[in-house]
Amino acid sequence: MRKRETGAGIHIALMHYPVYDRQERVVSTALTTLDIHDLARLAKTYGIKGFYIVTPLRSQQALANRLIAHWVTGWGARYNPTRQEALALVKMADDLESVAQEIEREEGQRAMTVATAARRHPLARPFKEVAELLREKGNTPYLILFGTGWGMTKELIEQCNYVLEPIEGNGYNHLSVRTAAAIILDRLLRGAVS
Amino acid sequence: MRKRETGAGIHIALMHYPVYDRQERVVSTALTTLDIHDLARLAKTYGIKGFYIVTPLRSQQALANRLIAHWVTGWGARYNPTRQEALALVKMADDLESVAQEIEREEGQRAMTVATAARRHPLARPFKEVAELLREKGNTPYLILFGTGWGMTKELIEQCNYVLEPIEGNGYNHLSVRTAAAIILDRLLRGAVS
Repeated sequence: MRKRETGAGIHIALMHYPVYDRQERVVSTALTTLDIHDLARLAKTYGIKGFYIVTPLRSQQALANRLIAHWVTGWGARYNPTRQEALALVKMADDLESVAQEIEREEGQRAMTVATAARRHPLARPFKEVAELLREKGNTPYLILFGTGWGMTKELIEQCNYVLEPIEGNGYNHLSVRTAAAIILDRLLRGAVS
Repeated sequence: MRKRETGAGIHIALMHYPVYDRQERVVSTALTTLDIHDLARLAKTYGIKGFYIVTPLRSQQALANRLIAHWVTGWGARYNPTRQEALALVKMADDLESVAQEIEREEGQRAMTVATAARRHPLARPFKEVAELLREKGNTPYLILFGTGWGMTKELIEQCNYVLEPIEGNGYNHLSVRTAAAIILDRLLRGAVS
């Protein structure tokens, strides 16, 4: 197993805001605790440096922080040390700009951002091209964004440096964010971990 | 997008029994409703023919059947037609042998079985080799098994025709069954759907 050797890290963010609801209104979605566990475990699996949960809602941040504390320093840490390792990667943030600033503080450089989306964006890049970008990134940190609800807003997607092509199913493209993130991280980073 | 063209189908099974618990006792695990949704949506995405939930517990079967009915014929079908399409693939079964018999009735031939596992089995086959088997399967149906809890029992795994190698993480191998199934199906079947 060959680990990533050089340069800055790859980070992921689960965006609870700004995203669309069924009626294409811009909303803050509620946290799903299983998403936090699943994405933290994926992050640990693929050598991701930080996993940001992005929501401006203080009550949701407090809920997530309670869950994280349980597994990282509380009873859960003794019950399940592998879960502790994964959830130690999770951080809360108010918005994309706060995430960008925190990564910049940590890595000394602003991250390049990659939006993921279930619908094909006109500027979408193939998986192969983005995987190549990540392999060749050198000292540039990267941040991969995943949407919740009915997807990240058009404005949020267009604020990113790159948009990734969607997972093309057998004519069906309605995965959960958990399973979509698993497939995307595997396609982009498999070479880096095995 | 190129669809699978020939021969029999690929089926998946989520095994709630016989699996280990933390202490390596053989147990029936409880259903997780999100697993049913996530795996059904994955099945639909990758052109899987049937998704079996395997548990001998009648109360758990009844619970799953209520959930499926809600989305396939009940209110959920009108609320979310894409969920209906996915959950229409789900069937309940008492044990592996019942699944094998149902596939044989449907396909006219007994399925070859592929066990998946988070721990490396001495007989484990590489992803590439199993992907090749599935591409070349002709009229032979295949059934891919996913475990719950702390994994399928040794005896169940050794009853299968093949065992797949584990997903090698960055020194960390503790994914949820939802995300592991996503990565495994993508690695085995991506070529068939895109």
